[in-house]
Amino acid sequence: MLKGIPSILNPDLLKIMMEMGHGDTLVIGDGNFPAAACAKRLVRCDGHGAAELLDAIMTFFPLDTYVEKPVAVMATADGEDAPIWKEYQQIIARREGEAAFEQVERFDFYARARDAYAVISTGEGALYANIILTKGVVIE
Amino acid sequence: MLKGIPSILNPDLLKIMMEMGHGDTLVIGDGNFPAAACAKRLVRCDGHGAAELLDAIMTFFPLDTYVEKPVAVMATADGEDAPIWKEYQQIIARREGEAAFEQVERFDFYARARDAYAVISTGEGALYANIILTKGVVIE
Amino acid sequence: MLKGIPSILNPDLLKIMMEMGHGDTLVIGDGNFPAAACAKRLVRCDGHGAAELLDAIMTFFPLDTYVEKPVAVMATADGEDAPIWKEYQQIIARREGEAAFEQVERFDFYARARDAYAVISTGEGALYANIILTKGVVIE
Amino acid sequence: MLKGIPSILNPDLLKIMMEMGHGDTLVIGDGNFPAAACAKRLVRCDGHGAAELLDAIMTFFPLDTYVEKPVAVMATADGEDAPIWKEYQQIIARREGEAAFEQVERFDFYARARDAYAVISTGEGALYANIILTKGVVIE
Amino acid sequence: MLKGIPSILNPDLLKIMMEMGHGDTLVIGDGNFPAAACAKRLVRCDGHGAAELLDAIMTFFPLDTYVEKPVAVMATADGEDAPIWKEYQQIIARREGEAAFEQVERFDFYARARDAYAVISTGEGALYANIILTKGVVIE
Amino acid sequence: MLKGIPSILNPDLLKIMMEMGHGDTLVIGDGNFPAAACAKRLVRCDGHGAAELLDAIMTFFPLDTYVEKPVAVMATADGEDAPIWKEYQQIIARREGEAAFEQVERFDFYARARDAYAVISTGEGALYANIILTKGVVIE
Amino acid sequence: MLKGIPSILNPDLLKIMMEMGHGDTLVIGDGNFPAAACAKRLVRCDGHGAAELLDAIMTFFPLDTYVEKPVAVMATADGEDAPIWKEYQQIIARREGEAAFEQVERFDFYARARDAYAVISTGEGALYANIILTKGVVIE
Amino acid sequence: MLKGIPSILNPDLLKIMMEMGHGDTLVIGDGNFPAAACAKRLVRCDGHGAAELLDAIMTFFPLDTYVEKPVAVMATADGEDAPIWKEYQQIIARREGEAAFEQVERFDFYARARDAYAVISTGEGALYANIILTKGVVIE
Amino acid sequence: MLKGIPSILNPDLLKIMMEMGHGDTLVIGDGNFPAAACAKRLVRCDGHGAAELLDAIMTFFPLDTYVEKPVAVMATADGEDAPIWKEYQQIIARREGEAAFEQVERFDFYARARDAYAVISTGEGALYANIILTKGVVIE
Amino acid sequence: MLKGIPSILNPDLLKIMMEMGHGDTLVIGDGNFPAAACAKRLVRCDGHGAAELLDAIMTFFPLDTYVEKPVAVMATADGEDAPIWKEYQQIIARREGEAAFEQVERFDFYARARDAYAVISTGEGALYANIILTKGVVIE
Repeated sequence: MLKGIPSILNPDLLKIMMEMGHGDTLVIGDGNFPAAACAKRLVRCDGHGAAELLDAIMTFFPLDTYVEKPVAVMATADGEDAPIWKEYQQIIARREGEAAFEQVERFDFYARARDAYAVISTGEGALYANIILTKGVVIE
Repeated sequence: MLKGIPSILNPDLLKIMMEMGHGDTLVIGDGNFPAAACAKRLVRCDGHGAAELLDAIMTFFPLDTYVEKPVAVMATADGEDAPIWKEYQQIIARREGEAAFEQVERFDFYARARDAYAVISTGEGALYANIILTKGVVIE
Repeated sequence: MLKGIPSILNPDLLKIMMEMGHGDTLVIGDGNFPAAACAKRLVRCDGHGAAELLDAIMTFFPLDTYVEKPVAVMATADGEDAPIWKEYQQIIARREGEAAFEQVERFDFYARARDAYAVISTGEGALYANIILTKGVVIE
Repeated sequence: MLKGIPSILNPDLLKIMMEMGHGDTLVIGDGNFPAAACAKRLVRCDGHGAAELLDAIMTFFPLDTYVEKPVAVMATADGEDAPIWKEYQQIIARREGEAAFEQVERFDFYARARDAYAVISTGEGALYANIILTKGVVIE
Repeated sequence: MLKGIPSILNPDLLKIMMEMGHGDTLVIGDGNFPAAACAKRLVRCDGHGAAELLDAIMTFFPLDTYVEKPVAVMATADGEDAPIWKEYQQIIARREGEAAFEQVERFDFYARARDAYAVISTGEGALYANIILTKGVVIE
Repeated sequence: MLKGIPSILNPDLLKIMMEMGHGDTLVIGDGNFPAAACAKRLVRCDGHGAAELLDAIMTFFPLDTYVEKPVAVMATADGEDAPIWKEYQQIIARREGEAAFEQVERFDFYARARDAYAVISTGEGALYANIILTKGVVIE
Repeated sequence: MLKGIPSILNPDLLKIMMEMGHGDTLVIGDGNFPAAACAKRLVRCDGHGAAELLDAIMTFFPLDTYVEKPVAVMATADGEDAPIWKEYQQIIARREGEAAFEQVERFDFYARARDAYAVISTGEGALYANIILTKGVVIE
Repeated sequence: MLKGIPSILNPDLLKIMMEMGHGDTLVIGDGNFPAAACAKRLVRCDGHGAAELLDAIMTFFPLDTYVEKPVAVMATADGEDAPIWKEYQQIIARREGEAAFEQVERFDFYARARDAYAVISTGEGALYANIILTKGVVIE
Repeated sequence: MLKGIPSILNPDLLKIMMEMGHGDTLVIGDGNFPAAACAKRLVRCDGHGAAELLDAIMTFFPLDTYVEKPVAVMATADGEDAPIWKEYQQIIARREGEAAFEQVERFDFYARARDAYAVISTGEGALYANIILTKGVVIE
Repeated sequence: MLKGIPSILNPDLLKIMMEMGHGDTLVIGDGNFPAAACAKRLVRCDGHGAAELLDAIMTFFPLDTYVEKPVAVMATADGEDAPIWKEYQQIIARREGEAAFEQVERFDFYARARDAYAVISTGEGALYANIILTKGVVIE
């Protein structure tokens, strides 16, 4: 553990977030997401909720301002918003400002996960809780 | 995730618990424990409390009945019991029956951790929350 | 060995089952199945029968309820049902409820095995005893 | 699988048996034996009984005729013979001729396992079912 | 060395033969065959003749009875039979019964070697001594 | 790069700092320090000054309050203080409060570096610029 | 450190520069460049400016004289020259003589980085500071 | 070093030459050849001239007699013969008999190097000194 | 295969012989020798006789002339010479001149094998056929 | 190859020289030196003379001025100076100034080589041509 870094962020995850550059994507998968099958780089966060993790990640992670929708979620089967998305939007608004979410069909979402820089597996029990973040630039 | 297995147990941890045999030891270290420096096999459970993890482990883990004290904790500097030990005792009593705890001095505890089959690092914030479990036999 | 986990499940197999997500597939091959040639991840269970292993796996493994036929077998050359399929159906019915089986032609079956998350090789002596399981979701 | 080789012998096990030379030892551990902690080379045979495995091994494995007792078992706590030893003696007598068994105290047995060429973990449920075989020479 | 296993079969070769399943192929290359360049899995048997090795392999290896020609040789430039083929036919007839050989053009043969489960390099000095074996099933 | 993390800290270094626990030590070596020869884990920061790096590290790194002198420097040959130590003391005072430095003889310092959790090599040109930090606990 | 080699050049970077041949390319990415995602071989130079690094590299690195433009930069969104390019041109003019720069669109630049022999990640804070060098021949 | 083997041949190079079979190719690149970028297997012979190395290689290496031109060189830009080719021809004539050389355009040459069994990098200073050898058969 | 190198010498063996220097030892073990258990570097030559292999090795291998007995054999239990030693002496006399053999007790021989640069396992069926060669210098 | 770096220095060697720090040692072994058996890190320079290599190394390598004799050679059996030492002294005098050489007995020399940071094997044919260099500091 270090001062000022939430203990939910494991060393590999923070290392991977630091390695990422402009336009690279990071996927947070829920407990049933086929993370190990998709991931180029897999980070396991078993037992943790996705929102708690997202909040810790967004402490350090800049979103891409060069694209219209730097955040994507997996579209539900019935076209309704999943309840957890509201929580995601509040976290992101608080850290990086309001952002509209892109909705991506399930199998297209898997394809994006295979192209992502890394995929995080969590223990999130909510359905349709998968989310993709596109990294922006840090201006020092 | 699987049916009947708590999501806090990650795949590597359960694999390691299955590989262990009679007399092998498993250490749960708190957030400040030098786990990576001591461990022959390291399992990271960043961000989780030690008691929640112990409870999930004890669902499957038999304690050694061939020794007097199959559980050890790190002795506090002032000789008082650490508050979290009571929680540990309740978990163990519920899963395997009452068991007295051995208290081990800090640097002796590190030596045992270096000999242990595996060490788990957690995000536990309580002090003196480190604990060693000695595995017993399964009678089918 | 652990309490409540059948000893026929080896540590690697349970670890792999835990890593799998929604839609990932697991193949149980009989003693003559070209498992090592097909498998992305190979789990050896030499000397064990396929039905005994299936029964242990189904203790923990949820079937996919999003697809019509979450179980597939290799179609016989003569179009008849292989005798062991009945045994498979009883096991699955007992663990997850009745499920119709898809029949897949031999070389198509090999292609699916190459795409599967993992392939298990057994010592099963019965012919046409190969089976594919599609993982579903765990609702906690 | 191959013609004339029992399917309970996995490829790694037979390879290891072939690599061994005069005086090298092979340990068969029961289901509670700390095999992974002791083994220089570990062969997992989860779910199998030790006697069935011993019988398959002895089909190919010559015992050392240069030493008085080429077979050792772990001494019981009460000094009585473990019931499974009789079964072991019959298997060895049938394959290689009568042989007296050395009895080795538990922690000395662990030390020998650490020096052994390989250790096999099984799912054997009987207690004190651990056995060490010393390899002899093949005269062609 | 083990009882009943010819010493010309090295541990890796027997392990590989055990891992192979129905339809997998095994190539025996002569001393000039580009084995290392083609092989997914390479087994070196430097200094040995191909016929002696084939004979030892066929002690354990079942040929595929589901295809018309489970054995293939590299076609000679002049279309004549290579002298060593007769020796191969006698070995195979003795172990598995008479079998017609498929003749495969040199560069097609290389392509099959690249798809084979394993390729064995030998010290065989005869020309056109390369041979492919397709594995069948073992009925216990 | 991430928000709030100085770009001089490379991903491996931050990962290693996160992995360290109470009592583990971290060495910053100057440009002539035999870092690669001593280090269990080596982090290269070629071209950077040691003070600039120390300042970035101390943003996150807690010093051990259980020992009298959690910081050590390599004693100079003439017993005088090296000029850069004053800079080190100011950095540490600003981040963690005043701390007295232990002075360690050159070859004893090498022995401590061999026991340290990690050693950082820098391009620091000042002489006797080597420093050891002992990690303390994070109280959340 | 060695005599005559700038300390900003780390051992891996110089090794990689030595391994490169005629026509191979080397990319220097700024602090936000997705270096780890693109690179066949990644060299981390966290915290360093790109111009300082370019200057050290050009001490040893010959530019390709067989192509018209051996240096490429990432084209800006507005078509203007990035301020840092002037600095790059002065460095290159001083080391290898005047050279016109090719401007490459952002996503084409990424494609070239994926084909490059190596990619260097820096801590450069200036935007559009990415540059590709094509290696020429050394005439001794 | 061994009796009768020139000391310029390093152990990896001779091992690789022994592993090669009929039709496999070996590239000797000059000091500016992009060997590391092209090679499936790279052998470094830094500081050595190509002709000296070719002479040592041809002591053991049979050229392919099944093809018209078993030796290829990189065509010069002006279509003239490179001076070093004459030296190559004399070496080959002395070892294996006269052989005409195929001339291959620069980028086609790179493509062949990527397909070659191995590429050797030398310190040869002459231009257009790159050469490809196709291995023939050894008749014992 | 290469011109002038016996095909019984496999690529790894010749590579290892080339890597050895003055005073390094090479062990040839018979078919029952515990080669894999002793060897720092193991070379398998299954199925070959030890004398045939020794003859090929001695084509290239210089014996140490700085010691009195550069060749050692394993002493027999009865103190008699093993029949194969005469064959060894003839081979060595022919290649390097007459040399007296040191006789080493069985367990001392094992200790020397553990210190040897490499150990070769053969299929030699003769008893007490193990031999150690000490490498000398090559004067070019 | 790079501008200003002799082509006899291979990339691994220069990388290793850069990694070394104050007090680390580098051994240049002659063609018969048991380099592979002694070396923690081995650099092969087959076919090169030791003096030519020493000259290239000394272009960049500072000798230790904190010790009396930063250079050591292997003492000859007869106590006479080996002819090549004079050449070594001239090279070192030209690069770093006059330096007396320590003479080290053969087996003590081997012990030092085992402790050295790296050992270089050459093709040097002269006897007693082995030399150890102790690295000093670079003052920028």
